[in-house]
Amino acid sequence: MMFRDKVVAEYKKIQDDICEGLTIADGKGRFEEEIWTRAGGGGGRTRVIQHGNVIEKGGVNFSAVHGKLPEAVKKAFKVDSEDFFATGVSIVIHPSNPFVPIIHMNIRYFEMDEQTRWFGGGIDLTPHYVIDTDARYFHHYLKNICDEYDASFYPKFKRQADDYFFIKHREETRGVGGIFYDRLKPDHTGLDWDQIFNFSCAVGNSFLPIYTELIDRNRNTEFTEVEQEWQYQRRSRYAEFNLVYDSGTKFGLETNGRIESILMSLPPMAKWTYNHKPAENSLEAATLTKLIKGVDWV
Amino acid sequence: MMFRDKVVAEYKKIQDDICEGLTIADGKGRFEEEIWTRAGGGGGRTRVIQHGNVIEKGGVNFSAVHGKLPEAVKKAFKVDSEDFFATGVSIVIHPSNPFVPIIHMNIRYFEMDEQTRWFGGGIDLTPHYVIDTDARYFHHYLKNICDEYDASFYPKFKRQADDYFFIKHREETRGVGGIFYDRLKPDHTGLDWDQIFNFSCAVGNSFLPIYTELIDRNRNTEFTEVEQEWQYQRRSRYAEFNLVYDSGTKFGLETNGRIESILMSLPPMAKWTYNHKPAENSLEAATLTKLIKGVDWV
Repeated sequence: MMFRDKVVAEYKKIQDDICEGLTIADGKGRFEEEIWTRAGGGGGRTRVIQHGNVIEKGGVNFSAVHGKLPEAVKKAFKVDSEDFFATGVSIVIHPSNPFVPIIHMNIRYFEMDEQTRWFGGGIDLTPHYVIDTDARYFHHYLKNICDEYDASFYPKFKRQADDYFFIKHREETRGVGGIFYDRLKPDHTGLDWDQIFNFSCAVGNSFLPIYTELIDRNRNTEFTEVEQEWQYQRRSRYAEFNLVYDSGTKFGLETNGRIESILMSLPPMAKWTYNHKPAENSLEAATLTKLIKGVDWV
Repeated sequence: MMFRDKVVAEYKKIQDDICEGLTIADGKGRFEEEIWTRAGGGGGRTRVIQHGNVIEKGGVNFSAVHGKLPEAVKKAFKVDSEDFFATGVSIVIHPSNPFVPIIHMNIRYFEMDEQTRWFGGGIDLTPHYVIDTDARYFHHYLKNICDEYDASFYPKFKRQADDYFFIKHREETRGVGGIFYDRLKPDHTGLDWDQIFNFSCAVGNSFLPIYTELIDRNRNTEFTEVEQEWQYQRRSRYAEFNLVYDSGTKFGLETNGRIESILMSLPPMAKWTYNHKPAENSLEAATLTKLIKGVDWV
């Protein structure tokens, strides 16, 4: 079995497991699947869940595409290869309860030739209300996974997530971060390709236990209209990040990707109220003070 | 009086007139004003109206800023001047009734030195439901203004609006277009600076009669939940355009502009429902067929 085929098989299984687990956790919503093929080669399985008990809108997408490398990508990646292969699983979940956090996970493998290939990915949490115990639980879980592979991974990937998931024009992070890595390969890591692949799968497989725990902790928390309003305001920041800064989104839009799959990350409903400011000493104001880089959650 | 001071005085008056006229037309909402100054020089008057009878959220902003030209701007404009002066009026109105269109207007004057200066601007209409008679009224009005100055203006600026207000990744125009012009100066036009300035003011002064007419035509049209839902979906396209493509927004975000003034253009509430499609033969489907470039509305 070729390496890339192993990756595809495992990524598909991760998508299946996550969809099954989220369906059980939600208890009402069902994933609707669309199988699509790409004119240039390959395709994917887009799975979207809407109007669930817990999940207002969520997508768990798998794709494996190949073909001639578009000129735009050659430039962006600074490579000179003609062919490419890329596979990945991408998830964004927008819950209906403002105390359940938004979550995003992505694992991906990119290959041009034996020399030019790498893994990338990450997982990050965007609470509408930052709950310290949840943020600590989240980061501890990620640190444990990272530490099994390389003690340098967590601090490095945590810092990269802080830098990446940053809404520059608001001078605030998208949420409480997580881990973010790119172009991960044996060089400098002391790991071989199989070990890096295993790390990628460990990140993918961490999604379900992490998120179902965060759902269970918060799904029954009662909320007020003010709190729901705050959730809509926070979601508009999420939309700003994804449309203005997110590389995956920009890349998809520029290369005529499958628009609805790319933009499934956008919130089901968002509000931009002019100059919306939380009340002093409120829970909302407390959250804003925590949307900064460099918080040590472990 | 220096030329730029004449422009400032007239632009301020245009802002005042529009705010007064919109307040009367709305009948309930009031503009709240914030006066701001810019560290590097100059400032502005941000005026926002929310929760009116007709206007759910709208901004009518004036600014006049000057100082050292940021490096990013030098590059973007391909100029080598050290100092700049820029003034303008910018408007976006999001109405609550889905049959009243969203409207955008901008007039601006930019100056680096006697040789390097120009006017820019435009006005365009984004109906949630395209009403042919309204679109024709709108374009006829703009054509009449243009024709008073130069017969080539309307066809050229109309085409430029079609090209500019285009959501590439959706392959649809933002609305029914209007006019868009940039770097307008005496060269090639046969007009002198004062005449171009007058044209700019004529565009600015067209806003109120145009929009109050469109409000009056549609403000009392009854609408269903389906139609309100469609409005929210269309507003999310508006947000996509502004965050992904709009030069003014991008420029503002990159140069650390006044964020809330820049993003006042974003809708008060928007929805991204996955793969939202209008019913066959519906009013919504009819609107989509008209969101294309090159429609001759006159």
